[in-house]
Amino acid sequence: MFSLRHQAHHPQREFESSGFQEPFERPERAEFIRSALAADGSFEFVAPEDWGVAPIEAVHDPGLVHFLEHAWEEYQQAHGPTHDVIPDVFAMPQLREGMGAAREPSDVSARLGWWCFETTTPLTHGTYDAARSSVDVALTAADLVANGERFAYGLCRPPGHHAARSVYGGYCFFNNAAVVADHLARTLDAKVTVLDVDYHHGNGTQQIFYSRGDVQFVSLHGDTERAYPYLTGHVDERGTGDGAGTTSNFPLAAHTDDDTFLDHLAAACDDVDSFDPDLVVVSLGLDTYFDDPICDLDLTADGFEACGRMVAQMGFPTVVLQEGGYATAELGENARRWLTGLAPTRPNPTKA
Amino acid sequence: MFSLRHQAHHPQREFESSGFQEPFERPERAEFIRSALAADGSFEFVAPEDWGVAPIEAVHDPGLVHFLEHAWEEYQQAHGPTHDVIPDVFAMPQLREGMGAAREPSDVSARLGWWCFETTTPLTHGTYDAARSSVDVALTAADLVANGERFAYGLCRPPGHHAARSVYGGYCFFNNAAVVADHLARTLDAKVTVLDVDYHHGNGTQQIFYSRGDVQFVSLHGDTERAYPYLTGHVDERGTGDGAGTTSNFPLAAHTDDDTFLDHLAAACDDVDSFDPDLVVVSLGLDTYFDDPICDLDLTADGFEACGRMVAQMGFPTVVLQEGGYATAELGENARRWLTGLAPTRPNPTKA
Repeated sequence: MFSLRHQAHHPQREFESSGFQEPFERPERAEFIRSALAADGSFEFVAPEDWGVAPIEAVHDPGLVHFLEHAWEEYQQAHGPTHDVIPDVFAMPQLREGMGAAREPSDVSARLGWWCFETTTPLTHGTYDAARSSVDVALTAADLVANGERFAYGLCRPPGHHAARSVYGGYCFFNNAAVVADHLARTLDAKVTVLDVDYHHGNGTQQIFYSRGDVQFVSLHGDTERAYPYLTGHVDERGTGDGAGTTSNFPLAAHTDDDTFLDHLAAACDDVDSFDPDLVVVSLGLDTYFDDPICDLDLTADGFEACGRMVAQMGFPTVVLQEGGYATAELGENARRWLTGLAPTRPNPTKA
Repeated sequence: MFSLRHQAHHPQREFESSGFQEPFERPERAEFIRSALAADGSFEFVAPEDWGVAPIEAVHDPGLVHFLEHAWEEYQQAHGPTHDVIPDVFAMPQLREGMGAAREPSDVSARLGWWCFETTTPLTHGTYDAARSSVDVALTAADLVANGERFAYGLCRPPGHHAARSVYGGYCFFNNAAVVADHLARTLDAKVTVLDVDYHHGNGTQQIFYSRGDVQFVSLHGDTERAYPYLTGHVDERGTGDGAGTTSNFPLAAHTDDDTFLDHLAAACDDVDSFDPDLVVVSLGLDTYFDDPICDLDLTADGFEACGRMVAQMGFPTVVLQEGGYATAELGENARRWLTGLAPTRPNPTKA
């Protein structure tokens, strides 16, 4: 599952570590993965359908969706030509401590810092269209599995798992995995697990489902005591209300290697087995790779294949959606190995 | 009242409007004001005393004070040499919507976005010392008035009025005016008004005193529907609890001129008269000047002198503390004119 529309989101730079950096999340990422799967020859490619905005607004604040549709253009009108639109002032709660809730401001600069939580996720001219296409890719993959495929892979870009109900950031605009999990849970009256193996905690997905009993969220990630996004991902976050017990977090030490990661993945899979979902959605980050430029785990391509195999062995219909991974040159091979572990023989080719 | 220690805070750049800008809030601002007052010949300069940290922790979260004392050094250890330390990820409440309050993170990058609300206020090597010296200047000016001077002026840099109880930003670290007003109110058992005439709403001062009956906050400012800091400064913000009715906001249209500003200042002074304070603290921003590079009001030097005169005519002992003003070359003359309006004859010279 793939769409060239992702290319419309093409930041030139991101603001991070007190300065501008070359974007780590760039269009080539998706191109490398597509090339590697095409070269493999055993993946069947399917074009995405248009799913409209309704499945997005089922998990995101419609105000966020509206903002992302119009903000880049509004900013050009207010500030003149700006390729990468980045917030600079944020609606932090201490600003109105003891004064009651804030109203959404009217100025576009202020609204950037109302709907976004950081500075590494520029809005570009085509960001909204790319983010919509990424959701379409995800939902089309999910639909194949809903209709009987054992596996499908959505080559989503931009990624999604940092986007919470009413805030974007962390390279993410719409939470592809959350849209898919919610869509499957609602339309199939199904129990769904989101298993997030990205290096970074899937804070957005966790937040969206924190009080829901029909969608489980299980995450392995670099311990957020040291790792982005910092504020979530602790072991004691277990869900609340109907969702009590349906959130599981596995924070990992720096330089966790294949074997240790697989031990934790086995424990995570035990939690999934206990929940006994009808379908599994995997948030597939490949930034756990030993040579990733912004992360500190030590997985290898062999480890990725073993991870895919372990997920397949649970036996659930599985939608795999691309999240992070910034070792661009190796990204295609790493994705191919993970998916090969998931579906090694492919007599009926895995849909990608 | 002046200290060269302000020079220790010297950002090289600020992140704003999606890119780096030359800092508008720079050391020369204070030097120009000092030169203009010295050249005038009728201002008596007094060296500030060391007031320690207690008056600061009376209005700010001690965690914020501790963070500002150590963060720059911690960041160097984590990230390598960095002149201007700027946050990039912010603890926005939506990240934990429905999940309960966050804990202060341990990583220094995350703590930047825990204690700060924007990206234009870098921490530099000497920022903490400069911010402490700015408070010392303010408290020494206040002490002169507490001991019988009719007027004193604190040439504070960095400014203070955007710093709220537990968050810094907007070129401000410690809220000089709030520290002074709280100190005077507590030590003299006095009623104190903070009259804020800076172009930008004094959100921090308002927040700190919003529920207090002993300190009034009255502000004239560019309407925050269009102007930084956006989230506060509306007419319907009037205080709460013991502070009900002790907050007054006068949002101003773009291109407000001397006459219109003075009309609004007269209305603000009526509110001050009604409160009948024992002392007045003026947050003196000169960024209402027609040629200010980042603001849109149209005041002149004559208008500034008339403003000082109007404030003096209320008849209260008055501490004037410098806030913003970014037309650097004219800043000294504009400050001199405002203070000349306040105390035109100076048989006993105004302390500065």
